[in-house]
Amino acid sequence: MDDVAVLPSRPGHDLVMTKDAMVAGVHFLSDDPLDLVARKLLRTNLSDLAAKGAEPFGYLLMTSWPHAFGWNERERFARGLAEDGAAFDLDLLGGDTVSTPGPLTVGATLLGWSPAGGVVRRGGARPGDVLMVSGVIGDGWLGLQAAQGLLPDLEGGLARRYRLPTPRLGMRRALRDFARAAADVSDGLLADAGHLAAASGCGVRIDLERVPLSAAGSAWASAQPDKMRAMAALSAGGDDYEVVCALAPDDVDAFRAAAGVAVHAVGQFVDGAGVSIHFGDDEAPQERLGWRHGGQG
Amino acid sequence: MDDVAVLPSRPGHDLVMTKDAMVAGVHFLSDDPLDLVARKLLRTNLSDLAAKGAEPFGYLLMTSWPHAFGWNERERFARGLAEDGAAFDLDLLGGDTVSTPGPLTVGATLLGWSPAGGVVRRGGARPGDVLMVSGVIGDGWLGLQAAQGLLPDLEGGLARRYRLPTPRLGMRRALRDFARAAADVSDGLLADAGHLAAASGCGVRIDLERVPLSAAGSAWASAQPDKMRAMAALSAGGDDYEVVCALAPDDVDAFRAAAGVAVHAVGQFVDGAGVSIHFGDDEAPQERLGWRHGGQG
Repeated sequence: MDDVAVLPSRPGHDLVMTKDAMVAGVHFLSDDPLDLVARKLLRTNLSDLAAKGAEPFGYLLMTSWPHAFGWNERERFARGLAEDGAAFDLDLLGGDTVSTPGPLTVGATLLGWSPAGGVVRRGGARPGDVLMVSGVIGDGWLGLQAAQGLLPDLEGGLARRYRLPTPRLGMRRALRDFARAAADVSDGLLADAGHLAAASGCGVRIDLERVPLSAAGSAWASAQPDKMRAMAALSAGGDDYEVVCALAPDDVDAFRAAAGVAVHAVGQFVDGAGVSIHFGDDEAPQERLGWRHGGQG
Repeated sequence: MDDVAVLPSRPGHDLVMTKDAMVAGVHFLSDDPLDLVARKLLRTNLSDLAAKGAEPFGYLLMTSWPHAFGWNERERFARGLAEDGAAFDLDLLGGDTVSTPGPLTVGATLLGWSPAGGVVRRGGARPGDVLMVSGVIGDGWLGLQAAQGLLPDLEGGLARRYRLPTPRLGMRRALRDFARAAADVSDGLLADAGHLAAASGCGVRIDLERVPLSAAGSAWASAQPDKMRAMAALSAGGDDYEVVCALAPDDVDAFRAAAGVAVHAVGQFVDGAGVSIHFGDDEAPQERLGWRHGGQG
């Protein structure tokens, strides 16, 4: 490998880049298996590209290794990279490996192609657009608690979903064809829907009772004393790596048919600014939500 | 800023990318001023691109902040980015900011353009080519010691050179026109010349007494009991951020005229493999050098 990566231009296409880092103890658990850490690093970045409608093809890698990590740990990390590199057809194009007295820190710059001008941005939503989300919400947050042993997870499904998210790459074409704005759900549905609204210069209303849950999420929510607060917690939790997007009302059916995964309408973009949270017919009072807007990782 | 950076293709050009990370206490001193840390991050990556003949235009940034670092530290870091961003005409295209229980860790993916097929690689040297290096060697290593207070540095020039290297961007055109192989001197002249030789499938002979030193470097070397060992230490030390390259003997004069900075012949590529170190007429015995091949950062 040379000191640099060289990428010939691809006529008619834009290069799309995203860069995310993960720190042991912050973005993954310090005892998480390192092959899963490597795969999560790729997948969280792939999720970013998927939400933008881009086709990933390669990445640059940064790893910062604590001195206590030897050959076995690095080999296991490399095995995870190889596994998901093959699964998602990604080339490792370059990077840097350093040592650190601190926790394991890993980062990747993921690269993808998009037809020129076709990247789906954050800022294209208009008042009246339908707010839609893919898959289910809240399993990332529940999965973190399961991985920490704070929640029973008899079949391991929740913890696995936290450790190994599934980027929604199958939605790329549908997003490019129909979505006016899109992002992946990494900070939490409420925060990421708010990012779309803010970038689009409008507000967004979210109907908590319409937020799709998994069987495990439904069971958890049903066991909570305050259903509204439970739904808000699931919608505020991060790490879902679903796609949240804005659709013109007339495009909803076609988008649903093309998405290749279940998508649900969970609210609407509105005039004004900010996120308003509704449960049934009422606007949820913020003080009952126990919810803080997701900030930086 | 969106979740991703989008870069239209530039016809007739290749995109050149390099990614380097720096950890407090490893790649810079924990009490280094943070504006200089930011500038060093950009400059070490710019050095990579310069040695490849590429024209830098932008970067993605990763910062991992310890909790003890507040607004003032971040503002100072941002000030350094802005200063060198303006000086080198770089756009900040995206990135990720996370928090860490460990030391400050920063990384950048620098992007540049090169005429299609024109990137200067590591692997093009041939036996008989002249090994050339820009500027002076050893001040990075002496500068680290000066910054640590282990060496007198009355005028601060050495420590400043360690903290704020000068990428040799003015050599880009000369490198593209004449160099058969090139790299920047980050691991040390001996190691980086060895990288060129290894990638080119040949060996390299380095004549220590021809390695160019600064006035400070000469004074330091003269004060050492073993001149050969001193020259080897300066040539093994890293952080010079000069350019080391391979030139066909017939191109040396033209390269010298076009380089825009002093360049010196310090050895020759040869048949075989590995690095042989000479001092005067003799090959230096490895056991007298106290030199270990530079490994990962």
